[in-house]
Amino acid sequence: MKTRIEHVTLLTMDSQNRVFSDGYILFDEDQILQIGDRGSQKNSLPDADVKIDGRNGILMPGMINVHSHIPMIPFRSMGDDCPDRLRRFLFPLELEAMTPELVYAASRYAVCELLLAGVTSVLDMYYFEDQAARACDELGIRAWLGETIIGQETCDSKEPYGGLAICEDFIKKWQGHDRIHPIAAPHATNTNSPEMLKAAFELAEKYGVLYTLHASEMDYEMSHFREAYGKTPIAFLHDLGVLGERTIAAHCIHMTDQDIRLMAETNTKAAHCIGSNTKAGKGISPVLDMKKAGVEVGLGSDGPSSGNTLDLFTQFKMTACFQKTKYHDRRVFSAREIVELGTIGGARVLGAEQETGSLEPGKRADLVLVETSSANMFPLYNPYSSLVYSANASNVDSVWVQGRQLVGGKRLLHTDITTERSRLQERMGCFQKQAQKYQHML
Amino acid sequence: MKTRIEHVTLLTMDSQNRVFSDGYILFDEDQILQIGDRGSQKNSLPDADVKIDGRNGILMPGMINVHSHIPMIPFRSMGDDCPDRLRRFLFPLELEAMTPELVYAASRYAVCELLLAGVTSVLDMYYFEDQAARACDELGIRAWLGETIIGQETCDSKEPYGGLAICEDFIKKWQGHDRIHPIAAPHATNTNSPEMLKAAFELAEKYGVLYTLHASEMDYEMSHFREAYGKTPIAFLHDLGVLGERTIAAHCIHMTDQDIRLMAETNTKAAHCIGSNTKAGKGISPVLDMKKAGVEVGLGSDGPSSGNTLDLFTQFKMTACFQKTKYHDRRVFSAREIVELGTIGGARVLGAEQETGSLEPGKRADLVLVETSSANMFPLYNPYSSLVYSANASNVDSVWVQGRQLVGGKRLLHTDITTERSRLQERMGCFQKQAQKYQHML
Repeated sequence: MKTRIEHVTLLTMDSQNRVFSDGYILFDEDQILQIGDRGSQKNSLPDADVKIDGRNGILMPGMINVHSHIPMIPFRSMGDDCPDRLRRFLFPLELEAMTPELVYAASRYAVCELLLAGVTSVLDMYYFEDQAARACDELGIRAWLGETIIGQETCDSKEPYGGLAICEDFIKKWQGHDRIHPIAAPHATNTNSPEMLKAAFELAEKYGVLYTLHASEMDYEMSHFREAYGKTPIAFLHDLGVLGERTIAAHCIHMTDQDIRLMAETNTKAAHCIGSNTKAGKGISPVLDMKKAGVEVGLGSDGPSSGNTLDLFTQFKMTACFQKTKYHDRRVFSAREIVELGTIGGARVLGAEQETGSLEPGKRADLVLVETSSANMFPLYNPYSSLVYSANASNVDSVWVQGRQLVGGKRLLHTDITTERSRLQERMGCFQKQAQKYQHML
Repeated sequence: MKTRIEHVTLLTMDSQNRVFSDGYILFDEDQILQIGDRGSQKNSLPDADVKIDGRNGILMPGMINVHSHIPMIPFRSMGDDCPDRLRRFLFPLELEAMTPELVYAASRYAVCELLLAGVTSVLDMYYFEDQAARACDELGIRAWLGETIIGQETCDSKEPYGGLAICEDFIKKWQGHDRIHPIAAPHATNTNSPEMLKAAFELAEKYGVLYTLHASEMDYEMSHFREAYGKTPIAFLHDLGVLGERTIAAHCIHMTDQDIRLMAETNTKAAHCIGSNTKAGKGISPVLDMKKAGVEVGLGSDGPSSGNTLDLFTQFKMTACFQKTKYHDRRVFSAREIVELGTIGGARVLGAEQETGSLEPGKRADLVLVETSSANMFPLYNPYSSLVYSANASNVDSVWVQGRQLVGGKRLLHTDITTERSRLQERMGCFQKQAQKYQHML
């Protein structure tokens, strides 16, 4: 079945940054077949089974969220301004109240939210990640998913580091799936022993999968590494031998010039989570310096407990404004370069730039139609500017992943958010009861 | 006619920060009559002509945008990343292409956008401001409006400072209007002579109106005052005698401790425009220090050319994240304190805290119902958190100004955005032609 969309401003995000102002696209369930400018087409447009009038919307590659904890929906808006919340109530409450059923229902809800916001690829790390994979598989999103490995008891393992075995089973189960890519996900530099960081890396190498962890995020992480090793976390990871092209370091807030050089030299990728980082007052990652040094950077929402929303429009605007402010220069990161971080840049972080991240024939048809008829989207001199500075998730009209339409007219086509919410709410009873213990912090 | 809304989480934003978790409100065309908790009501709720089920939404005071240039809609998304755009193309293009008809059509469009986003009060300064007043009057928003006074030729005055006479006529025409409050608006510290800044202040005093100007915003403004007077702009304004309770200084990015003390001592107000300031890489206003010193601060979107969207949700999230990051402390500005800046805080900036900014009997019924059924609004442990970190303008369901419903079911009730856009587009022909001259910068 072939689909054709026309009457759109088409942002290819290809290497020449081509934009078709009266663009069209043709794709099937497998891949993008043609793109171009309707006006420059001498003959009539290629025929299709489904023809869609894009009504002067912006057609862009599906957005790519490279760092999240999607099953954490039940935590959203809980204790947002509480200091050291990770250790004071997030870890304990996760341990006490997260169940496979809750992870599954929350993941389904989160995937719906991602799709409605135009995110077609997500990297996630959490517990019971097999349930997250099930949700992603069912709902049709593209996903890179990792079972968390951590040196403490968790909701899915009495034993510290039980995640390592779970992770291997998880990789074996999902490897080879068309859209679901299992990965290895040690929690953070300071919540794993060096041996286990290394063991997880060997697991990733054994199966040829990605390796992601939190790094250079926390003040106490930085002082721990300084005191224990006289090194930065990045230098420590480098000396441990776990940097490299399969490694994605999330956050990278506190970076020295040497850290950036080590990342670039080893082709280690960075997941930038500006909303989460700054809501916690942690600091501003030197994204410009990383990009200049040649480090690939993508954008992440972080979990809905840390970043609250899962869309990338929020990250677009905040990344632009924080980088421009950090470097005291409004020219830093043009709107186009920001959109790049959230599309083809994210694809490169995932090593999936042959598969997704731009609109080019031969790539998977992961695409988003952003409407321009809402009040905030007029006038439209520069579509990148409108996406970065004016748009929000509610402007997403339609979404396709791998040629299959999942959102249309701002609604999910194969389920609905009310149903997903009811199912999630049913599963949240025990969680909410446990959460009351921490009421005084919230 | 009395209206009752129930089944809402009601945020009063009153001095005790009362929240009614199963709240109701009763109001008429004049004022709020009752608020309370439905459950604690022994008798049945008071009767009303119109009864509205708030469907577990959040009912909050109408938001207050204390700095904007609403007629600048035609400039939105134009040259967003271009350095020194104010002098390089905004001033020239304004001079060449803004007409009364365009200001009127753009103001109507902007007011629609403000209302759809839950903004019920706006402070604006521009040229042909009488046309902006006409639009605000017709569409029912509450507004504080000032004709811009500036030492150069403008679209509405061949002579520099022609705005002063226009401003006086404008004040005389609109003074006494129930919702439209004329004010005096010299452009900025460095675009007016000291004599004219003073003359505009005397005009404001003569008529008992507010006085607003851009201050301590630009790098070149700071160095100009340092070199010409050996003072900061705020100290200069203080010595000129134009600080005081009727004065609202917009931006206040580059502030010394002495500047903050002078603002506090004179009861001068600040309009904080974080989205605009940081998109331009200008810097982060020390809002926490200003608040601690006792300076009243409200939130402004700035014009749609500078801040792109006119809603306050964007400013909520960015103000929180930038302040927390500036002070490296996530406790700085709780979500409740952020909502305060955008409601009762803004009302205090405008000297209108007896009239609007909180939900209390006797005040004008300026209110906003935010729906919580969209994907991004679940769960809801803390309604302030959800408004600040999760919500966007599309979550606004219904809006009332002075007891009159202007938005319902996410739509304007007395006009529609498509019609307003068509009218604006018709007026934009010459503007867009002129804009092509600056194409190389955009």
